[in-house]
Amino acid sequence: MLNVGRSQEEVRQHNLGTLLRHVHLGGAISRSELADRMGLNRSTIMALTAELTSAGLVREERPKDTGRAGRPSLVVRPDPRVYVLAFDVRVDLLVAARVGLGGEILDRREAVRRRAGADLDDVVDVLARFGRELRGKAGPGAVCAGVGAAYCGMIRPGDGMVRFGPNLGWVDQAFGTELGLRLGLPVLVGNEAHLGAVAEHQRGAGIGFQNLIYLHGDVGVGGGIIVGGKLLDGDGGYGCELGHMMVNPYNGRPCGCGSRGCLEAEVGEQALIDSAGRSGELEGRDGWYEVVKAADRGDAAARAAFHRIGDWLGIGVANLINLFNPGLVVFGGMLREVYPRAEAHVRERIAANVLPISRQARLDVSALGDDATLVGAAELAFSRLLENPVEALAEMRSYRPPSQELTGTTCRS
Amino acid sequence: MLNVGRSQEEVRQHNLGTLLRHVHLGGAISRSELADRMGLNRSTIMALTAELTSAGLVREERPKDTGRAGRPSLVVRPDPRVYVLAFDVRVDLLVAARVGLGGEILDRREAVRRRAGADLDDVVDVLARFGRELRGKAGPGAVCAGVGAAYCGMIRPGDGMVRFGPNLGWVDQAFGTELGLRLGLPVLVGNEAHLGAVAEHQRGAGIGFQNLIYLHGDVGVGGGIIVGGKLLDGDGGYGCELGHMMVNPYNGRPCGCGSRGCLEAEVGEQALIDSAGRSGELEGRDGWYEVVKAADRGDAAARAAFHRIGDWLGIGVANLINLFNPGLVVFGGMLREVYPRAEAHVRERIAANVLPISRQARLDVSALGDDATLVGAAELAFSRLLENPVEALAEMRSYRPPSQELTGTTCRS
Repeated sequence: MLNVGRSQEEVRQHNLGTLLRHVHLGGAISRSELADRMGLNRSTIMALTAELTSAGLVREERPKDTGRAGRPSLVVRPDPRVYVLAFDVRVDLLVAARVGLGGEILDRREAVRRRAGADLDDVVDVLARFGRELRGKAGPGAVCAGVGAAYCGMIRPGDGMVRFGPNLGWVDQAFGTELGLRLGLPVLVGNEAHLGAVAEHQRGAGIGFQNLIYLHGDVGVGGGIIVGGKLLDGDGGYGCELGHMMVNPYNGRPCGCGSRGCLEAEVGEQALIDSAGRSGELEGRDGWYEVVKAADRGDAAARAAFHRIGDWLGIGVANLINLFNPGLVVFGGMLREVYPRAEAHVRERIAANVLPISRQARLDVSALGDDATLVGAAELAFSRLLENPVEALAEMRSYRPPSQELTGTTCRS
Repeated sequence: MLNVGRSQEEVRQHNLGTLLRHVHLGGAISRSELADRMGLNRSTIMALTAELTSAGLVREERPKDTGRAGRPSLVVRPDPRVYVLAFDVRVDLLVAARVGLGGEILDRREAVRRRAGADLDDVVDVLARFGRELRGKAGPGAVCAGVGAAYCGMIRPGDGMVRFGPNLGWVDQAFGTELGLRLGLPVLVGNEAHLGAVAEHQRGAGIGFQNLIYLHGDVGVGGGIIVGGKLLDGDGGYGCELGHMMVNPYNGRPCGCGSRGCLEAEVGEQALIDSAGRSGELEGRDGWYEVVKAADRGDAAARAAFHRIGDWLGIGVANLINLFNPGLVVFGGMLREVYPRAEAHVRERIAANVLPISRQARLDVSALGDDATLVGAAELAFSRLLENPVEALAEMRSYRPPSQELTGTTCRS
């Protein structure tokens, strides 16, 4: 915040959060290394680690023999008892995981689901059951520090309401609130592509980049954009909707949003099938993979379909590079398969349409693969802990779910 | 910075800068109001104002009779001796101004210039002369706290190099360095549309908005985008190039960047003249205004030209709203004339192409008008002072320009 001052208490919280973030993202690290990276003196680092240790968030250990003379600096590592629950609602799959402080996926559950007709109760039932199982297996002394969920739609950040999820047919569904009631824990919900971008930025292809664009292919195309190290959210949290960038204003394909010629209409699942001349014959994710396999066998129509899609994808990416001057563009979800098969066409558009100075942006596929959105949900779950560690943990320990009467939502237990 | 800790010294600088920013942007303000707005206690505010007062940056005064009992809180206001120099290199005009801490334009100079053939030396000669005149009239005791310049092209932030200024035909011209040598002061240079966005955000139509998009019409169309209260710059400072968003992929008009169908090619100066059927007959800014006047007289061809341009502008704005979920879109420069004459077509595109949840974005014209870019240049000049007031002022007072041999550039004095 530019207009507020900083107090001693705010500085303490910031420094605790920053130290914990180093340990969470970088793993075991010595006190002296922490002092270097954080630009603070050793006595300050010692006080911070002592506070995090007594809160049960980190442990300090004597390092193994370093072979050097002198007293070695203690090593700080995540306390293995601290974990979060992460959920991922994909078009075809429900995923739940227990993820430890430090980022390791410790346990997981998955359930395939039908695309159409899955209502809120069905989805929340499965996820809540998974959540209870994962917590039950967490062992004595384990502490849940947060819950995060990725959903393939537009999410209201305050309460995790799914405002618009056209691929599942959800409009204004109280997903975050319902899941929270069933779990008895507060739940943070984010758009899957936003969270995929966060995950790639912190733990994937985008480590070290301050400006990156993540394009997530599913039935449509979602986006997450990191600007100056932070996710672009916009006024309501609904930014990054790059899939609805109009790229084809003349005879564009119809889009799920009601418009025509949007990027996702031109490069999404159905566009590839139709462009390969397989409409009616193939459909859905399986049909889409048939076109991938045909292209890899050398089928001319399938290859041409990837080239046409690459051209539209290239226009979209070129526009984004001109707008964001990013260091990196990451193709995730189904676009991991599209990009390598359409790379020449994407790069041709970038060469033609991006201003020369911004052309140095690197293009790459997701490093986290199918787990990008799940990992992002876990990072969302950790986000409050990493802002204000001691207080956030105390809040989770003493959390009492709101009564059902007060929320005004139904809840089958 | 997320990964570094905060020290006492960093907190002191932040709080000094924040207090000075309140005084600079909001004008005279009581100590008790500052304590409320900054969330700090009164004794901290007193220490901060004392330090800024002794540095010669603010003055404290007893307020006029408040009519209330008790000892009134002292009022803090900008020290009137502190000013910056602001320059604005527009396609048709050179502007220079002396701007006081607090934002008032105290004195200004302008020179009309030819579009073609103006080389670096010509431009810098005029600006440096203006700068010397403005400083000479600043009065005894006045102190120059910074120099900022707006330029209609892509600027390297570190040294103010004009990397690409197609409208003036400049490529890799050491504008910032040269102007700094002639003035004997360090100069910060920014892209005119970036600075227009900053100005509208801090002092114009965008006060209070955290996310806004500023479109600046000149020969082409530039952009400045505020994300979470900060200018989007990207890896090299070359972001926000919304004028080169490809909107017309089929038979787009040629663009100054070498591509076709860019937003600025479809809605820029020449597009309006051509679309009104006046190619060859009218040209440049004067010709463009002829079309404006014709449209206002009811000329059907001129009005249709605005509608066509409004359609392309609407596609561009719709894409930007989907990406940024802004609270406000501001039309500046020549687009102040375009938007009111094309509003229905812009809004039609937004209704068709923007996702319903993001449609609430307000659309407005620049509040600062022709001075938006100049005001932005002044804010750029103040930027270091507002980050670290005491040190930045001391640096300016003791500044020694680098010798010409060391910079390797030529300089006629």
